[in-house]
Amino acid sequence: MRMVEIIEKKRDGKRLSRGEIEYFVQGYTAGEIPDYQVAALLMAIFFQGMEDGEVRNLTLTMAHSGELLDLSDVAKVVVDKHSTGGVGDKVSLVAVPAVAAAGLPVGKMSGRGLGFSGGTLDKLESIPGFRVDLSVEEFKHQLKEIGIVLSGQSLSLAPADGKLYALRDVTGTVPSLPLIVSSIMSKKIAAGANAIVLDVKVGSGAFMKTLEQARALAEAMVRIGREVGRRVAAHLADMNQPLGHAVGNSLEVIEALATLRGQGPEDLYHHALRIAGDMLHLGGVCEDLEAGEALAGEMISSGRALSKFRQLIVAQGGDPSYVDDVSLFPRAPVIETVEAAGDGYLAAVAADQVGMTVVMLGGGREKKGDPIDHRVGVVMHAKVGDRIEKGQPLFTVHARSGDEAERAASRVSHALRLSSEPVEPLPLFYDRII
Amino acid sequence: MRMVEIIEKKRDGKRLSRGEIEYFVQGYTAGEIPDYQVAALLMAIFFQGMEDGEVRNLTLTMAHSGELLDLSDVAKVVVDKHSTGGVGDKVSLVAVPAVAAAGLPVGKMSGRGLGFSGGTLDKLESIPGFRVDLSVEEFKHQLKEIGIVLSGQSLSLAPADGKLYALRDVTGTVPSLPLIVSSIMSKKIAAGANAIVLDVKVGSGAFMKTLEQARALAEAMVRIGREVGRRVAAHLADMNQPLGHAVGNSLEVIEALATLRGQGPEDLYHHALRIAGDMLHLGGVCEDLEAGEALAGEMISSGRALSKFRQLIVAQGGDPSYVDDVSLFPRAPVIETVEAAGDGYLAAVAADQVGMTVVMLGGGREKKGDPIDHRVGVVMHAKVGDRIEKGQPLFTVHARSGDEAERAASRVSHALRLSSEPVEPLPLFYDRII
Repeated sequence: MRMVEIIEKKRDGKRLSRGEIEYFVQGYTAGEIPDYQVAALLMAIFFQGMEDGEVRNLTLTMAHSGELLDLSDVAKVVVDKHSTGGVGDKVSLVAVPAVAAAGLPVGKMSGRGLGFSGGTLDKLESIPGFRVDLSVEEFKHQLKEIGIVLSGQSLSLAPADGKLYALRDVTGTVPSLPLIVSSIMSKKIAAGANAIVLDVKVGSGAFMKTLEQARALAEAMVRIGREVGRRVAAHLADMNQPLGHAVGNSLEVIEALATLRGQGPEDLYHHALRIAGDMLHLGGVCEDLEAGEALAGEMISSGRALSKFRQLIVAQGGDPSYVDDVSLFPRAPVIETVEAAGDGYLAAVAADQVGMTVVMLGGGREKKGDPIDHRVGVVMHAKVGDRIEKGQPLFTVHARSGDEAERAASRVSHALRLSSEPVEPLPLFYDRII
Repeated sequence: MRMVEIIEKKRDGKRLSRGEIEYFVQGYTAGEIPDYQVAALLMAIFFQGMEDGEVRNLTLTMAHSGELLDLSDVAKVVVDKHSTGGVGDKVSLVAVPAVAAAGLPVGKMSGRGLGFSGGTLDKLESIPGFRVDLSVEEFKHQLKEIGIVLSGQSLSLAPADGKLYALRDVTGTVPSLPLIVSSIMSKKIAAGANAIVLDVKVGSGAFMKTLEQARALAEAMVRIGREVGRRVAAHLADMNQPLGHAVGNSLEVIEALATLRGQGPEDLYHHALRIAGDMLHLGGVCEDLEAGEALAGEMISSGRALSKFRQLIVAQGGDPSYVDDVSLFPRAPVIETVEAAGDGYLAAVAADQVGMTVVMLGGGREKKGDPIDHRVGVVMHAKVGDRIEKGQPLFTVHARSGDEAERAASRVSHALRLSSEPVEPLPLFYDRII
């Protein structure tokens, strides 16, 4: 088999066989096929796409490129969730403790933020001492002991995805449906999940800008998951404004803690209930989604989800006093609130602009490995559809300096659009795909 | 400027600016931009194409990536030719001496064979001692002294093309019109040509299989050449059967020598006259193509073209006794002629199959750097349209062993199609594009 012939085949729109997919994934992971040939193939896949059978073979080959986590001695059913990434998305911090509190173990591997999209690991590291680099042994031990883990992706799982993702990132081949699907699903399969709830974001603050794109992605992931014997449900969720109010690492943890106390923003609360509810349903604890949502709600109102979160923080070396008293989180030196210049209705938020503003403030990354400042961020005080009155606080910027605060305030102001006519609020979800 | 943004721009079908083209060509030549990013960009160019302005900027940037050969002290007008490659194409060996004999200096840089297509350098190396690795100084000196050079591409000319071509070869990005145009034209421009005659082959033994593809390539090259101030003409030439009779290195040199003596195959003779005639016309020696053809014909009939070829061989260290007595060329150990099994008309020849048969016999290369055997090859005894009678010799195989001869005979037999109905002969040329 010759790699150049595989490239030419895909370039000419033909279907790659299972053997050809295994050849390039295994050869690339082993360092036998050079980056430049894989880069050309990825770009050919970007243009020509892949059929379902190809995506399935790619996903499984990537999943099997390293260790497969076997959690059968830890739990009968292992449930996982994945968000395609958005702005202000702290759903895992609320949903995962709620599910674990109901007795369904969740061992989740999360990622870091990149570009306008934040990452769960960065947020959790706002809590001093919290470790995200658990070994596979530590991961399994903690999952067995307390039924909850939120850690980084182990390098021994799906190493092909790690290599391919890094290459896609620098070759303009990230936004390809088969490559996104196989990247997400291979990691989930390698991490031992039997049931997977997908939170597929759509809108200005998501990678998928249209409902059609998001639906195609969700359907492809559900199909592949089902074909490889996993229970999968995908939720098409709105990301045309930040989720909740806070964007920025410690600000989002503070908001997640408020939500676990039943005092968070309504949209975040309901969004987290939906995801947690489906995890409880697919995980076999509840008969349907509605029962799952009700049980997750009980876990929050009873305080058991918060206790579970506290347990998680302690188990991974974090300082639990931050959970008990959020005033301990360090605050940015400059905190500046911008007020509405006139009356109207909030009509639109360019959520990616809000996300990029937080990157600019130091709270996110332009490129991998950039250091981040956990304190900075933006807190929105209105949702799309809200009536705005002149002088009312619109948003607050948390910055390292007055200069940066000013630039951020200007950028976020430009990201908001007010209308003199009433505007419909945005839905939380558009659809559930099973 | 970031390379990933340039890739994304082309991926999304946008026009690259001159600055962006210079950035990646210069950065890649300098080793500052990695292979994998350029590979992804090449594949994006394959799919999205380039506008004329982009091709012009790419061509000029590649031409200026190294030394520009200045031949103004050697000749007022420097004329060059280029063939897009075919089977049995020994036109340079006839046309270049004919033009030089008429007093127009030709310093031509040629290539080696790859795949089904042969290369002038390999053919010339059939003559013991002949050197193709002239330095730029030697090249200029010889051109001034005797008005003819046939040498390999100097590494100091258009180094960007050398790097890009090697990468295209292993990433499935060879057959891209803007990349082919810029590769050919950048080398010609760097080699100091003022006037360029292009021999664009179309058919089963060419890279361009259809007249439309070949015409598009020819028009693009003529346009770019003109835009950068060169006189250019392109001939669309048939390559649906080998040119002349012989395919294989020393066999082709022997045939070229016969043609220079006025005893070669008619198609090769007329093809070479056309190319030589246009070189003489574009080079300012003859008023029009017809006058050029007539002058080139005189150079052959007078023996001056053959003398010029002998001078070339001597100047580059070759043994001229091979020119005087072609029986000195070593012969392959097994020479086997295949006869027609029935009556009919030769209807079609899969010329690429004949070319690949010669590769299989050891006379060409599967990949760069493979050694070649100059003795082996195939000699066809009929042209498309010829009446064939049972028992008449169809072709002769020159092989290293009986086994290889048999496999070659079978493969060439399968490459021929006989018809019981009369068949029109193929034209030599389809069009001239200026």
